[in-house]
Amino acid sequence: MLLGPRDRDLVASRKEPLMEGWTLLVVRQLDAENHEAGGYVVAADTVGAGVGEVVLYATGSSARQTETTRDRPCDAVIMAIVDTWEIGGREIYRK
Amino acid sequence: MLLGPRDRDLVASRKEPLMEGWTLLVVRQLDAENHEAGGYVVAADTVGAGVGEVVLYATGSSARQTETTRDRPCDAVIMAIVDTWEIGGREIYRK
Amino acid sequence: MLLGPRDRDLVASRKEPLMEGWTLLVVRQLDAENHEAGGYVVAADTVGAGVGEVVLYATGSSARQTETTRDRPCDAVIMAIVDTWEIGGREIYRK
Amino acid sequence: MLLGPRDRDLVASRKEPLMEGWTLLVVRQLDAENHEAGGYVVAADTVGAGVGEVVLYATGSSARQTETTRDRPCDAVIMAIVDTWEIGGREIYRK
Amino acid sequence: MLLGPRDRDLVASRKEPLMEGWTLLVVRQLDAENHEAGGYVVAADTVGAGVGEVVLYATGSSARQTETTRDRPCDAVIMAIVDTWEIGGREIYRK
Repeated sequence: MLLGPRDRDLVASRKEPLMEGWTLLVVRQLDAENHEAGGYVVAADTVGAGVGEVVLYATGSSARQTETTRDRPCDAVIMAIVDTWEIGGREIYRK
Repeated sequence: MLLGPRDRDLVASRKEPLMEGWTLLVVRQLDAENHEAGGYVVAADTVGAGVGEVVLYATGSSARQTETTRDRPCDAVIMAIVDTWEIGGREIYRK
Repeated sequence: MLLGPRDRDLVASRKEPLMEGWTLLVVRQLDAENHEAGGYVVAADTVGAGVGEVVLYATGSSARQTETTRDRPCDAVIMAIVDTWEIGGREIYRK
Repeated sequence: MLLGPRDRDLVASRKEPLMEGWTLLVVRQLDAENHEAGGYVVAADTVGAGVGEVVLYATGSSARQTETTRDRPCDAVIMAIVDTWEIGGREIYRK
Repeated sequence: MLLGPRDRDLVASRKEPLMEGWTLLVVRQLDAENHEAGGYVVAADTVGAGVGEVVLYATGSSARQTETTRDRPCDAVIMAIVDTWEIGGREIYRK
């Protein structure tokens, strides 16, 4: 799983029917120190992330192991809103 | 899922029989700001993308979760034509 | 499988229900000479890694082949605590 | 799927029994402009590529969706011989 | 599949029970010209590679398609000992 802020929406009106009902978000990757790492992924949101929240997302076949995405052509899914992460007691991020 | 413009066709007359019927496109990767990121992928098109349209594509086993590609040796599939994407209200791309 | 030290916790209170019960750790990647390689992954811990221990983790669909993660949206799992590794008799790491 | 020229054979006499019968080729990756991109993959050949031909190959679990590779430990398979590819009418490659 | 020399052992006494019985090796990646490429992977050995031998390994779900690794949390497996590889008649490596 990787980390990224949620702040970009993506709209696609013409699409594979199996994608119907997904909220698609462009999530930029964060590195372990909470800086932008350069990459991004377009992910389906299953938890209702709000603008500016840091999310945890899974990729690959694991992204199909949720009720919303099972057996559908999804390779990235937002699974959680991150509250905090830390390094040996030092807090890197707090929501 | 990642983003890229559709503008290259690929023709392969001698191929694995399970690929019959696919339209193969060379899709260059875009970064989250709509600039070319350097990579590319050859993807099967399930939505009929037109030249110059920005497409959303899935990779890996998720690329086999469409009617056209199920149980076939496909690791990249075009799933949608992108209309818009934005960052916190700022529009990055509009078709 | 890749190697990394265990020293960061991640807390996510709002999450996909299938993630309940996982301990989530931020694991930085090590290279083969025991130096930090720059990347990281958020992994579910199945072995109870302690702070500072070097762990072995699997990614992708293989991360779902444990009792804790089977059929759940997990793409990285900590599988072992590393005791030693060596190159042709030269010891690179000892716990 | 990615593109690469076929020009290297690989011989392995001691191997996993499930690999018996595969022709193994070292395929260098091409970028979208037909230049070498630096990487390579060792792939099983299902189409009988000749020396110097540009091939299309699939990776990951999709590489196991051919008759030759199904349920076998194969993560890269050559699926087609490329005839041409183009960019907006400009031809990048012709066999 | 990728190539690398076998010369590092890894010992992990506390581990996921499904890993019991595996020989774990740290395999550095080689590029197509037989030079070290910088990366590595920890792989389960199914063929009994000796020190200094160049091995072929598969990653991802394909690494679970051997008798030793089926349905286990393995994402990299050594499948063969390489004898030779060549480019258009020029030999790059011979064991």
